[in-house]
Parts: sequence; C-alpha cells; structure tokens
Amino acid sequence: MINVGVIGYGYWGPNLVRNFADSNSARVIAVSDLDPSRLAVAARRYPGTEATLDHRQLLANPAIDAIAIATPVSSHFELAWQALSAGKHVLVEKPLTATSDQAARLIEFAAAKRRILMVDHTFVYTSAVRKIKELIENGEIGEVYYYDSVRINLGLFQHDVNVVWDLAVHDLSILDYVLAASPVAVSVTGMSHLAGGAENIAYLTLFFESSLLAHIHVNWLAPVKIRRTVIGGSSKMIVYDDLEGSEKLKLYDRGVQVSEDPEKLYQLRVNYRAGDMWAPHLDNAEALKLEVSEFIDSIASNRRPLTDGEAGMRVVQILEAATASLLARGKLVTLGKGVAV
Amino acid sequence: MINVGVIGYGYWGPNLVRNFADSNSARVIAVSDLDPSRLAVAARRYPGTEATLDHRQLLANPAIDAIAIATPVSSHFELAWQALSAGKHVLVEKPLTATSDQAARLIEFAAAKRRILMVDHTFVYTSAVRKIKELIENGEIGEVYYYDSVRINLGLFQHDVNVVWDLAVHDLSILDYVLAASPVAVSVTGMSHLAGGAENIAYLTLFFESSLLAHIHVNWLAPVKIRRTVIGGSSKMIVYDDLEGSEKLKLYDRGVQVSEDPEKLYQLRVNYRAGDMWAPHLDNAEALKLEVSEFIDSIASNRRPLTDGEAGMRVVQILEAATASLLARGKLVTLGKGVAV
Amino acid sequence: MINVGVIGYGYWGPNLVRNFADSNSARVIAVSDLDPSRLAVAARRYPGTEATLDHRQLLANPAIDAIAIATPVSSHFELAWQALSAGKHVLVEKPLTATSDQAARLIEFAAAKRRILMVDHTFVYTSAVRKIKELIENGEIGEVYYYDSVRINLGLFQHDVNVVWDLAVHDLSILDYVLAASPVAVSVTGMSHLAGGAENIAYLTLFFESSLLAHIHVNWLAPVKIRRTVIGGSSKMIVYDDLEGSEKLKLYDRGVQVSEDPEKLYQLRVNYRAGDMWAPHLDNAEALKLEVSEFIDSIASNRRPLTDGEAGMRVVQILEAATASLLARGKLVTLGKGVAV
Amino acid sequence: MINVGVIGYGYWGPNLVRNFADSNSARVIAVSDLDPSRLAVAARRYPGTEATLDHRQLLANPAIDAIAIATPVSSHFELAWQALSAGKHVLVEKPLTATSDQAARLIEFAAAKRRILMVDHTFVYTSAVRKIKELIENGEIGEVYYYDSVRINLGLFQHDVNVVWDLAVHDLSILDYVLAASPVAVSVTGMSHLAGGAENIAYLTLFFESSLLAHIHVNWLAPVKIRRTVIGGSSKMIVYDDLEGSEKLKLYDRGVQVSEDPEKLYQLRVNYRAGDMWAPHLDNAEALKLEVSEFIDSIASNRRPLTDGEAGMRVVQILEAATASLLARGKLVTLGKGVAV
Repeated sequence: MINVGVIGYGYWGPNLVRNFADSNSARVIAVSDLDPSRLAVAARRYPGTEATLDHRQLLANPAIDAIAIATPVSSHFELAWQALSAGKHVLVEKPLTATSDQAARLIEFAAAKRRILMVDHTFVYTSAVRKIKELIENGEIGEVYYYDSVRINLGLFQHDVNVVWDLAVHDLSILDYVLAASPVAVSVTGMSHLAGGAENIAYLTLFFESSLLAHIHVNWLAPVKIRRTVIGGSSKMIVYDDLEGSEKLKLYDRGVQVSEDPEKLYQLRVNYRAGDMWAPHLDNAEALKLEVSEFIDSIASNRRPLTDGEAGMRVVQILEAATASLLARGKLVTLGKGVAV
Repeated sequence: MINVGVIGYGYWGPNLVRNFADSNSARVIAVSDLDPSRLAVAARRYPGTEATLDHRQLLANPAIDAIAIATPVSSHFELAWQALSAGKHVLVEKPLTATSDQAARLIEFAAAKRRILMVDHTFVYTSAVRKIKELIENGEIGEVYYYDSVRINLGLFQHDVNVVWDLAVHDLSILDYVLAASPVAVSVTGMSHLAGGAENIAYLTLFFESSLLAHIHVNWLAPVKIRRTVIGGSSKMIVYDDLEGSEKLKLYDRGVQVSEDPEKLYQLRVNYRAGDMWAPHLDNAEALKLEVSEFIDSIASNRRPLTDGEAGMRVVQILEAATASLLARGKLVTLGKGVAV
Repeated sequence: MINVGVIGYGYWGPNLVRNFADSNSARVIAVSDLDPSRLAVAARRYPGTEATLDHRQLLANPAIDAIAIATPVSSHFELAWQALSAGKHVLVEKPLTATSDQAARLIEFAAAKRRILMVDHTFVYTSAVRKIKELIENGEIGEVYYYDSVRINLGLFQHDVNVVWDLAVHDLSILDYVLAASPVAVSVTGMSHLAGGAENIAYLTLFFESSLLAHIHVNWLAPVKIRRTVIGGSSKMIVYDDLEGSEKLKLYDRGVQVSEDPEKLYQLRVNYRAGDMWAPHLDNAEALKLEVSEFIDSIASNRRPLTDGEAGMRVVQILEAATASLLARGKLVTLGKGVAV
Repeated sequence: MINVGVIGYGYWGPNLVRNFADSNSARVIAVSDLDPSRLAVAARRYPGTEATLDHRQLLANPAIDAIAIATPVSSHFELAWQALSAGKHVLVEKPLTATSDQAARLIEFAAAKRRILMVDHTFVYTSAVRKIKELIENGEIGEVYYYDSVRINLGLFQHDVNVVWDLAVHDLSILDYVLAASPVAVSVTGMSHLAGGAENIAYLTLFFESSLLAHIHVNWLAPVKIRRTVIGGSSKMIVYDDLEGSEKLKLYDRGVQVSEDPEKLYQLRVNYRAGDMWAPHLDNAEALKLEVSEFIDSIASNRRPLTDGEAGMRVVQILEAATASLLARGKLVTLGKGVAV
C-alpha cells in the first residue's frame, strides 16, 4: 500500500486523487491547495483525507511515501525538489519543468536520493496511443512518413505558458513514446491575439534524420474541438480521432508506390492503392488509472517508470527549442547534443 | 455569342467544355489535346465540335474569340502568349504561370492587345467563399485573427509541380479574394516521400502586417479527404467544410475577450463566450458556371474580370516565395515590392 | 436540508447518490443494495454514509425524509408503497411501475399520505428537451407533423422488461412533456432474437387526434449507438442528436407548402423552402442535478413536481398498450379513458 | 450493337441516356418526352439523336431494338405493353407497374413475344449492395436478425404515388436481392401532411417465416438527408451509409450470445462481444452503368436478366400489401400465394 499526498486540487488534481483513491494499492493521505474553496470540495468528497493550505504538511508527514504535483508549470521544479528532499517519490504533471536545465537537475537529484521521478504524460497510457506504437513497431505502417496532429478548441487561456507548452506537449510526449527517433530540428510559427497574452495559436514542424516530418497544430481560440492525428506510412496510414466514441483508431490500407522503370513516364510509374479500412477494438480503460498503476508499481518494484524523468526532459528540450523558433518566426532551431540554437 | 476553343481535355478541360457548352452565350468551336484517346472522348460527347491534336488550329481559326487553357502549368505562359498574339481572349487554369515574371509579361501583353486575361481561380466563384467574403466585409467576424486550412487526400502526384503549386494555390486565391490585405512574409516546411518526386506534403504560414496568421496544410498522401477551413475573428468564427452537403459554412458566436482591469488576476480578466451557431443556406450553383459567365461577360463588356491577371500574378508571387522558404526548411521569406528573398 | 436514503446502487443508483451528495440542500444518510460488492463501492466512496443490505433500515430511520428507488421495475411498486407507508417522500426511477393500476394506487396513496411522489423522467430535465418544448410552445415549429426517434446501441439485455420498457420509455416521457396532446392509439412491431429473452428490437407508432405521427425505434442489438430525434413541423424542423458535443439541437428553416390554386398542376403548387440552420447554445448542466433540485424543492415547498406520479402513470399506460400491440404484431391498440384494448 | 430508344427525359431519363451513350455496345437512336423544353435539352446534348414528342415514333422505328421507359408509374404498363407489341426488349424504371396484376400480364406477354423484360432496380447494381449479398451468403453475418433502413430527405412530393411507392421500393428491391426469403406479412403506418397529398411519411415492418424483422422508414419531409441501413446478424453486423464517400459499408464484429447454462442467472448468461470494425474497399463504378450492361448482355445472350419481371412483380406485391396496411393503420396484411389481405 503506497500512501500518497497530492499538491494542487485545481483542474487536474481531482483526477489524480480519484484514481489513487480507486486503486487497491494506494491511499490518499492528504491534499493541499492554495484555494480554500477547492480544499472544501476535496474535503466534502473525501472525508477521510486531510486537506491543507500548506503543502509542507504533506512533505513533513512521514506516513506519505509519494507526492503527486498538479500545479502550474512554474512551480514544478521547486515542489518536486522539496518532495525529493523529503525522501518522497514524485509524479509531476506535464510538462515536467519550465526548463530543461531544471529537468536535468531533478533527474540527477532523484537518482542520488534513490527515489522514483515520473512525469504525467497521460496520452502514453491510452489504449489508442499504445496501439499506434504497436502498429509502428510491428511494421504494419512501414516507414513512417509523417505525423500530423490537430489539437484545437476554445480552451482555457493560460497566463504562465503559451499554447505550445499547454497543448503541443501532448503530441511531443506521444512522439517520444511511439517513435524510435528524436527530432533534430524544429520550425515554429504562431501568434498571440489577446493583449498581453501568450501565443494562443501555433504550428510546429519537427524534422528528423529520416524523411519523417511531424507537424502539430495547437489553438486555444477555435470554435470547434478537434483532436485528430494522421500518421502516414509507406505501407498503411492511421487516423486517430480522440473524440470518436468507439472507433478512435482507423488503419487504412492506402498508399502510393513509384516503380523504378526509367522507361515509363512519371505519371505511369506512380501506383495508387486504395484498400480496406480496419478499426481495431480498443478497451475503454481510463489512461490515468493505468498511469497511477505504473507509478505505484515502479515504486514497489524500485524500477524505472515508463514515463521517467528522461522522457520529461526530452519533451522540455523540444518545447524550449520550439519557443526559440516561434520568437524568430519559423527560424530553424536544431536539437541534439545539448540544444544548439 | 462568344466562340470558344479549349486547349487541354485531360482532368479539368472537360469541365470547362461542359460549362461553355451549357451556356446560352457561348459555343465550343474546337478542342485540342495531345492524347488521341482524350480527343475521342470529346468527339463522342460533342459531335458538333472540332477535335484536333494541334492547338495551333484553334489559334488560327478566325471564328474563335476566346481560348481556355487547361494544360500543365509549364505550358501556360507559352500557350497564353500565342493565344493573345492571335488576338484571342484568354482564360488560364490556375496557377496562371510558372513564374511571376511570366505573369507580369502576360498582363502587359494582354493590355497592349486589349484582350481579356483571366485566371481560373475556381473557389472564388463558390457560394461558400463569396459568403465568407461578405461575412468578413460586413464586420460579422470582427478583426480576422487567423485562417487555417486543411486540404488533404490521396491525390494525383504531379510531376512538374509540387503539392504547394497544386493545392495551396486554392487557398492563396481564396485569401487574395476575401482579405483586404496581402501577406508580407511566408515560412514553409514540407517533404517529398517518393524517390525523385516533388514535395507531397507542405505547411505554409503566411504573416501579414496585422496579427492575422494564415496557415495552409496540403498533402497528396493522406488516407482521408479533408477540405476544412477555420477562420477565427475577434467577434465570431467560421468553419467551412467543403465536403459537407448542405451545411458547408457554419458561423459560431464564440470567442474570448480580455478586460483591461489591471487590478484583476489574468485568469479573471479573460471572458469566454460560447453562443449559438448559424449555418446560412447556400445555393448549389456550380462555381465554374459562374466563372464561365464572368469570362464571357467581361469579354462582352470589355471590362476587367474578377480574377484578372493581377490576381493570378499575386498568387504566383506567393507560390515562388513559398518554394524558396520550403527549400530552406521554414526560413522566413518576405514578400512585397518585388519578392525580396 | 433534506435527508435522503437511496435503495439500489447498481447502474443508476450511483448517479443519484452523487447528485444528492453534491447538492447543498440534501444529504445522503444511507444506501442499500442486495449485492455486498456494490455496497463496498458505496462505502469506499462515501465513508460517512450508512451502507446496508436491508432497505428496511432506511425506511425505519426517522432521520430520513425521502427515499430514491433505483431498482428493477418489478420492485418499484412494493418499495414505493413501503416508503410512503413509512411517511417518506419518494422518487422512483423510470418507468414508475410495472402496471398502470399500480401507478394509480401509488398516486392515490401519496395523496392520502400527503407525500411527494415523483418519477425519474431524466430527459425532461435536459437543456435540449427543455429547448424543444420552448420551440414548440412559442410556435417556432408551427404545427407538429411528426416526432421520429432512433435510440439504439449494443445495450444491456434486461431480463424482466423488454426494450420498449427499457428505452422507449425515454421518448414517451419526452413526448409527454413537450406535447400538449396525448396519443390515442399505438401500433407496435418487434422481435426477440435471443432464446428466452424479451423483445430486443421494437418499432412504435403513436397516433394522435391531429395528423401528428410519432415513431420510436429502440434496439438493444445494434452495432453503433444512435440517439437522434427528428421533429417535423409546418414551419421549421428540429434535429436533436444527443451524442453531439456542443450542437445537440439544430433548427432548420426548411419545409414544403402547397398553394391552394386549383388551376395549377399539383407539382406546380408545391413550394419547397430550404433556408438557414441554427443551433442554439445549450448549457451543459447535468440533467440529474436539475431533477434532484426539483425533487428537493417540491418537498420543501410542498408542491407538485414537474414529473409527478400522473406523468409516470401516463407513460406506463402507453407502455401497456404498446406491449399489447407488439404481441399482436402491429394491431392498433387505442388509448383513452382507461386503456380500451 | 443494341439500338435503344428512351421514353421520358425528366429526372431519371437523362441518366439512362448518358449510360447507354457511354456504352460501347449500345447507341441511343431516339428520345421522346411530352415536354418540349426537356427535348430541347436532349437535342442540345446529343445532336445525333432523334428527339420527339411522340413515343410512337420510337416504337415504329425498326432500327430500334430496345426501349427504356422512365415515365410516371401510372404509364409503365401501357408503354411497356406497346413496346413489347412492337417487338422491342423493355427496361422499365422502378416500380415495374402500378399493380401486381399488370406485372403478371407483362411477364406473360414478354415470354410469349420472346423479349427481355427488365426492371430498373438500380441499387441491386451498386457495389455496396452486392457486397452485402456476398457477406450474407458466405455466412459472415450469421443468421440475419433484422434489416433496418432509414431513407429520408426533403424530397420531391409525387402526385400519383405516395412515399412508399417512391422510396421504400428501393429497400424492397434490395431485400429481394440480398435475402433468400420473402416476407410473409407487413404492417405499415404513415401519414399525409399536405392537403390532398399522398402519404409523405411511412414506416413499414416486414415479417418473415424466421425471426428476421425488416423495417423501412421513408420520409419526403425531413430536414436532413439520411440513407442508412443497419443489418444485424447472429455473428456480425453491417452499417451501410450510402452518403459516405469512401466507407459506405462497415462490418462490425459485435453481438450478443446467451449461454444455455440453466444454473446461471439470466444476466450472467448473456455475453457481449465488442470487436473490430472493418470497412471493405468498394469500387466507385456507377450502378446504372452495370445495369445497362446487364440489359444489353441479356438481350445479346437471350438470357434472363438479374432484375427480371418476376423481381419487379414481387416488389409490387409487397407495395400493394403495404398500401392496404397503411390505410388500415398498421393492420397486419399477409403475403403469399396471391396477396391474401
């Protein structure tokens, strides 16, 4: 049985608390938030759980084994550092930290303290994304040509981060999980439309060593909600629509081949293939349930979790490069051994 | 009655011939194509129309007033020049020419010959795009924040042009029509996935003097067909789905405002508005029918057509800048007095 | 503050408990269920609430003011009767009872005991259905021509009731609420496809005194989930799709008129109107929250609730007539003063 | 080479003419229509084809081998009889005749004259319907439990026939083709909402000797167009949406089984299966092209066509029974050896 404290009971915190509470292997000992009205909600729902304005009570509580952090990004590093200092295992909401340097320091500190450091890359734990990884790894897709994601809606405008740090982070964590390769450069454009606000619309292009191209469109100011990713491969292609009820993932046996016959005209050498579509059944398990299991199990087994600190850091590195490119209106920013801008 | 000759009876030519034939003010005198099998189809359908392998027979025919050109882009300039030389009015399929220099020369020549030069920017003649222009001009949308278009499918791979020249040209012609302003710079990324082929996927970002951002995603290698444009404004927002049957255009009374009160926290100053949606009835008239009318009427009235040579040239200038940026992986290319790369 | 006891913690009970618990005017004192594993779930989630296998403990508890019943239909009458006998107010899941005679007896008993008797016709409390009633009552639709509902999915096969009693009851409760008139006759067809099972597919036609026709298609054995109602009127028409996210209700300005001119041919007298579509913004309030409020408020104010015992009885009368018609393969069964079969 | 004459150039006639004209094995010699403006359209499009107000000129023309009839239903019998009398082969638009007696007489007469009599059941020639037949015949679906079709839109109100004869006829022809069995009884409800008009909305239930249930909903007065058929079977289920572009047919591996174990409770004996979905690629061939081929080939080979007079008569028999039931508000009307009402 792992005893958990949760810092932050705003938008995401309640989901973490609920999933820890539903688990047979965990217990939520205490919750903290700076807003008394949020604490009142938590207290009403979970009469047996301590609710406090001061997160240090959680850190000081020797009964608590692990801390989950669901606060604004700017506070992630400081809170995670304090939790590790107090000897707690730590699960941090995405993105892991506000800078890659902070991420590197947390990773090193967690290793030194022999504590689990995990990042909450929720989509990695969905049935759909896990099936995508399987389809890529077993060769069903062939060579991956492109990953194109649209993630837009009328969303909550954040103050401390722009739309890239808020939404594109999901796609970056998915790419980090499903692909064998990492991007080598990014070109990002975007715009802020509210006075004094962060960028509310952005377009990221990620280049890889191969001819793979990844593109992510994120937007807080769209009239409709769209969550759709198209993945093109040399053999088959995937359409992943996260808003679909029972057919989130569709695999198309469609594509184009060019024969090598130099005698033929170009048009005659291109062969189009339009075959069947197949939508595998996916279970409806809540991703966060699986993620909470992974956290608990990695603590119990003293092993590295699937979405460890390194995964968190790789994503933050791309976010940093993306921000640099965005400020320079699409200027190519390379990634690699260190972030050479 | 305007007598018309059509050069090119491949993919688009038959649509031009059919619409000229259905018009009460025009007659198709002759059709030419380099492919005898295409000519046979034309001859079968239109027994009264001359079908020839040699387009020069059309140019030499004094009974022909106007020439419509539906051939590969690389031949547009030469054929249009010949037609103007022969004293014919000219309608050229999009894009007008392969370079902006060619476009400028055609415009000058047509003026000198006092002949109509028109470009086939078909979407400008659709009910949906005309309604969009109306909604922007009457202030319904407010300040235009962004134009985001996705135009993808498993398409015919072209040999002489890439996907930007083939598909993005549609959005560029729509933008040229509905907006009062022209882009000042572009950043384009893309990739070719077939050996020896042109780029089959591309992402264009267009910057304007205002905070308007335009983005166009074009792709020949997608498993599904999507034709959807989202236009965000300070007052309302449009979703235009060209594949919808009867509700192609939806206007959403949704948005975000930030109050100026400096006393309040940022989150509290942001007001979200989620109101009604309205889909205006659009007539089902074929765009090409209206376009053919515009061509005939501009000849008869000796007036400038809506999509004149200048419109064609402006679009080609952006296509040139886009190509330069694409080759430089997203490098910002400015547009303006001449194309200063 | 109303103190509530909930009998039945299976599929629907947890929703009732959650909504009573979230209300500021109610408190859930106790929950009963015959299944210990369901009770364990309740106890875990609501540590302060008594959980018991014996519903009589709830009835005997003087602290409890009201009982909500979420058990199989066959037990509704007996449990409601016991609750009223114990002086409790009663909210019963739909359908109110297994026979209209039982319904009549409960209504009479509640009146005698001066207690509130309310039926859980949930859809009546949705924003969409309330907007439909408004559109009908303010004349927007004109004369109502038809109500056509499809309510199908791969659903839980019930043992004690067929698909009419399980699903069509929703549409009957909606019709009872939005229309001024009651049906005068029904014709129902259907089939059972599982050995020993109740009918899993059924089609109900309801006739009214006017030319209004209502039709309901319910099916437990469909591969896809559909919840769509079309309401045709002389002026406008509604499409209500309950699975849509933000545009559940669409109002179409479409229709057909016949002019009276006897000189004209029939075809020339018919005028088709295809106008705009409008989707009003609907709030996302959970229906059950509003329903729970109505129950609490009707107790506090000692007034008749919106979905009272009479509404429940009217629906059960139609269900009885529908069953009779279904057994006779579509035979018309009349409704009226009593159910004259 | 078969020489064809087409009687009727209204809504459907132009499609017949175009497909005969495009065939390499046929030639359209003449077209007749009572409306001079329609004839003018035909003459303009097909300069080499004779256009006449008098259909008797087609019958008298010895160069014509076959007659296609695309006129109102009430004239089908008379025109087909005349054409057979003149020794022509005959293709008649659906439904074959206005009564089953007329159908029987035509069948007998065609046999006596040794001429082909074919009915234009277009849907039988679509890729989707042919694939459905294949999936049923090869056992993929298992036992067919139900066929549920919705065929509604804002349609052209007919004067001489009601919506059953206009739209339900399509589903009846599909059922006649894909099923091995014929219905034994029907129950139909419906309504007319325009003064003096035929029924514009109707619901047909068809009973078979097995537990198969077929239901057809047709409506001329719907705000949206729907063409969707769900076919449930003991093994798999089909959703056929004719308005879908590239995925008209979806096969779901979903269903319910009941185990026989009498020891278990009913709920525990029901097993739900929610598996994959598969959408086979269908070619885009125009159905009418295939149908015209079938007509020409059956003439050339002197063989019975797929949709022969008997198929046409079986459908008319059901239409007659449906009308009788509709007038009696859902009264069960049996079909069989003769139509025993």
